[in-house]
Amino acid sequence: MMNMNDVILKKRNGGKLTQEEIKYFVDGYTKGEIPDYQASALLMAIYFQKMDREETFQLTDAMRYSGDTIDLSEIRGIKVDKHSTGGVGDKVSLIVAPIAAACGVPVAKMSGRGLGFTGGTIDKLESVPGFQTSMEPDDFTKQVNDIGIAIIGQTAHVAPADKKLYALRDVTGTVDNFSLIASSIMSKKLAAGSDAILLDVKCGNGAFMESESDAVKLAELMCGIGEAAGKKTVAAVTDMSQPLGHGVGNAIEVIEAIETLKGNGPEDITELTMRLAGIMIYLGGRAKTADEGKVMAAHAVKSGMALAKFRKFIAAQGGNPDVTDDYSLFPQAKEKKNLIAQTGGYVSAITARSIGLASQHTGAGRATKEDSIDLSAGVILHKKVGDKVSRGDVLATFYGNDKKKVANADAEAASAFVITGEKVNKPALIKEVIGL
Amino acid sequence: MMNMNDVILKKRNGGKLTQEEIKYFVDGYTKGEIPDYQASALLMAIYFQKMDREETFQLTDAMRYSGDTIDLSEIRGIKVDKHSTGGVGDKVSLIVAPIAAACGVPVAKMSGRGLGFTGGTIDKLESVPGFQTSMEPDDFTKQVNDIGIAIIGQTAHVAPADKKLYALRDVTGTVDNFSLIASSIMSKKLAAGSDAILLDVKCGNGAFMESESDAVKLAELMCGIGEAAGKKTVAAVTDMSQPLGHGVGNAIEVIEAIETLKGNGPEDITELTMRLAGIMIYLGGRAKTADEGKVMAAHAVKSGMALAKFRKFIAAQGGNPDVTDDYSLFPQAKEKKNLIAQTGGYVSAITARSIGLASQHTGAGRATKEDSIDLSAGVILHKKVGDKVSRGDVLATFYGNDKKKVANADAEAASAFVITGEKVNKPALIKEVIGL
Repeated sequence: MMNMNDVILKKRNGGKLTQEEIKYFVDGYTKGEIPDYQASALLMAIYFQKMDREETFQLTDAMRYSGDTIDLSEIRGIKVDKHSTGGVGDKVSLIVAPIAAACGVPVAKMSGRGLGFTGGTIDKLESVPGFQTSMEPDDFTKQVNDIGIAIIGQTAHVAPADKKLYALRDVTGTVDNFSLIASSIMSKKLAAGSDAILLDVKCGNGAFMESESDAVKLAELMCGIGEAAGKKTVAAVTDMSQPLGHGVGNAIEVIEAIETLKGNGPEDITELTMRLAGIMIYLGGRAKTADEGKVMAAHAVKSGMALAKFRKFIAAQGGNPDVTDDYSLFPQAKEKKNLIAQTGGYVSAITARSIGLASQHTGAGRATKEDSIDLSAGVILHKKVGDKVSRGDVLATFYGNDKKKVANADAEAASAFVITGEKVNKPALIKEVIGL
Repeated sequence: MMNMNDVILKKRNGGKLTQEEIKYFVDGYTKGEIPDYQASALLMAIYFQKMDREETFQLTDAMRYSGDTIDLSEIRGIKVDKHSTGGVGDKVSLIVAPIAAACGVPVAKMSGRGLGFTGGTIDKLESVPGFQTSMEPDDFTKQVNDIGIAIIGQTAHVAPADKKLYALRDVTGTVDNFSLIASSIMSKKLAAGSDAILLDVKCGNGAFMESESDAVKLAELMCGIGEAAGKKTVAAVTDMSQPLGHGVGNAIEVIEAIETLKGNGPEDITELTMRLAGIMIYLGGRAKTADEGKVMAAHAVKSGMALAKFRKFIAAQGGNPDVTDDYSLFPQAKEKKNLIAQTGGYVSAITARSIGLASQHTGAGRATKEDSIDLSAGVILHKKVGDKVSRGDVLATFYGNDKKKVANADAEAASAFVITGEKVNKPALIKEVIGL
C-alpha cells in the first residue's frame, strides 16, 4: 500500500518519484482521496527538489489521463493545436487559426478565459454578438469537417487534476516551477487530442517567464514532453516586454485581429502571426517547410481567404459575421480617457504587466474567476517601444463604461510608459523557435 | 492586509518572517481562517529554508498564546516542569516527580499519552487502579499546595496551535525540523506556567533525534527559547540507544519506578533519575547546586520519603496506594513469551525502536490516537547492553492478554538484540547537560 506521507518524504529528501508514485498522487488527489494539505506539501517539496524530465513526463501523463480525453479521430487531416503561455494584447490565436484553416489545416481548438492581467480567447470571441463558445462534441467535429475551424471553451472534464492542482498552487506559493508549469500546459494540450502542437512561450515583464533563458528552458521541456507523447511539438519563444499590437481588451482585440486578417494589422502582430501560421501550416502537412507555410499564410491574408474563413467560423458559432465590416456592431464603451505624454523623446519601454492590469481595471479583465467583464473595455496604445513622441501626444486611450474605473486605469498606466532622449530600437519579437 | 500566500512565498524565497507574519499564521491557522493546505506549504518551506533563532522564538511565543495558559501563581514555591522528548521505557517522570516533591519542590505537571513506539506518563499512571488523570484547576492547585505534587493529562485548550500543527506535520513530511520540534515542545511547556523547566532530550535509535550532535543542537535551541521567555531552562542530553531500565509498557514501568523509589531500581534508571531529580531540586531553589540536589534526592529515596510522597500522590488522585506493596493489584497479563538467546557472547545493542514497536504490538501502545491499550502488556528485558549472555538465556519476556500478539511481538523483537563475541562497554547515559 502506498502512503502519501512516504511519497512527500521521498521527494523532500531528493528522491526520484516512480511512475506509480506519481500516478498514485495525481489519481488520489483528483478523486479527493489525497487531501489538499498533502498535495501542497508535495508541491512545495517539488519546488525545492525539482523533478527530472522523466518525472515531469510521468506527471504530465498522469494529469492528461486524470479525466476525459478528446477524440478528434473523426476529423480529417492533421489537427494542429496552438497554445500561448499568456500575455497582454495576445490576440494571435484569433488570427492564426482562420489563416491555418484557410490553408487546409483543421483547427479544433479549446481555449481559456482571462484571469488577472492576461486575457483569454474565449472572452474575446464572446464580444462578437451572438457568438457561442460551447458545443456538443458531435457538432464540434462536424463544424471542423465542414468549415475547417471551431474554437470552444475548456470543459471541466479535461485534465481535472490540472484544474485542481493549479488552483492549489495559486494559493500555496508553488506556481513557479518548470515541471509544474510544463505539465500543467502539456497535460491539457495532450488531452485535447490534436496531432501536433505549436506553443507560443512568452517572455518579458508581461509574461510568466520574465527572462528569455527561462522561457527557452520551459519551451524545451514542453517540446520534450510533447515528443515523448508522440506529438510533433514546436515552440516559439516570443517577446512580451511590451503589449502585443496596439489593442488590449476584448472587442478591442477582435477588431485588431480582423484588421490583421485584412492585411492592415500592426507590424509586430503581422510578423508574429505570419510566422506562427506558417509553422502551423507546416505542422499540418500543408507546406514542406515553415517558410513555405509563411508564404501561404501571407497569401491567405492577401487573397481575402483568411478573412472569409473567419466570417464563416463566426457565423457557424452563432455570431454575426458582419462585425468584420461594421465595428459598431461590437459592444461600445461610453467612456474614454487619453493618456498624454508629459515629455518628448522615444518610448523605451511599456511595461506590459502594468498595461494588462490597467486594462483589467477598466473592466476588461477579472480579478477572480467569478467576476464579470465589460467586453467593450480596454486600452488602445498609440505609441509602442521605439516610437518618437512629442510632449502632449496621446500615448494611449482607455475605454470602458465606468467613468471612474477608466480614469483610474488611465492614471495607473502613466508609469508604464518610459520615455528617453535617445533613439531606441524595437525589440526582437521572435527570440527562438524550438523543435522545427 | 496580510496574505498567507505572500508569507509562504517570503519563506520559500529564504526571507525572515516578522513577528507579525508568524502571529498572523499561527492565529489564523488556530482559528481555521488559514487552511491546512497553506499551513503545510509553509511548513515545507520552513523545512527547506529553516527559521533562525528569533523566528523560532516568535513561533513558540505565538503557539504558547494560541489558547489558554495555565496560571500556577496560587501554588507556593518555585514550580519546576520536567519534559522528556520521548523514548522507550522512559519512566523517569514517575520517579523524579515524587523525589523532587519530597525535597520541597512543588510539581504541578501536565503529561501526555503514548503514541507509536513511545509511551506516555498518563497511560502509565492509569495502570494504577482508580487513578484519575483529569482534575478541576482549583483542585489541581490545592493538591499541589497540600501534598506538593499533581500530574494530570494535557487539556485541549493549552497551545491548540501546536496540537493542530503537530497533527498536520505528522502527515505532510514536515516533522523533522529543529525549529518546528523546539517550538512544539516549548510552546506547551511555557503555556503550562512553571517557573523553570528541565528537559530530557533523548538521542539514539529509540529517540526522535538519532545523533548526539542533533540532540545537543535541539537542546540548546530549547534552552534559548526558555531563557528568552524568562524561564530558567536546563536540558540533559541522554542515551536512548537501548531502552531505559528493564521494563517497557504501562503497569510494568510503574512497578520499575516503584522499585527505583525503594532504592532497588536498575543502575541506569537510578543514575539518570538521581541526576535529573538533583537538577530539579536545584532549579526549585531547594539546593545550591545540582550536585547538592543529587545528594538530597538520594537521601529522599534512602529515607523512604520519596516513596511515601508517591503513595500520597496516588491516593490524592483516587488511586490505590497499596500497589507499592502489592504488585498483584496492577492489571495482570494472562500470556507471556520468552525471547531466548540463540548464541552466547555480549549484548552489543538492543534497538530501542524495535523493542518499543514490539511492546506496542503486545497491546501496550497505540498505532493511532483512537486505539485502546492493554495496561498489563509490555516487555521486561533481562539483559542490557554490555551484559554477558549464554546460548539459551532468556533475553526478554513479553506480556499481554492476546496470545498471538504476544508471540508475534516476541518474534519481532528477536532481531533487536545484537550479540557479539567481544566484551562491550555500557553506553554513557548522560551525554551532556546544557544550561546549568
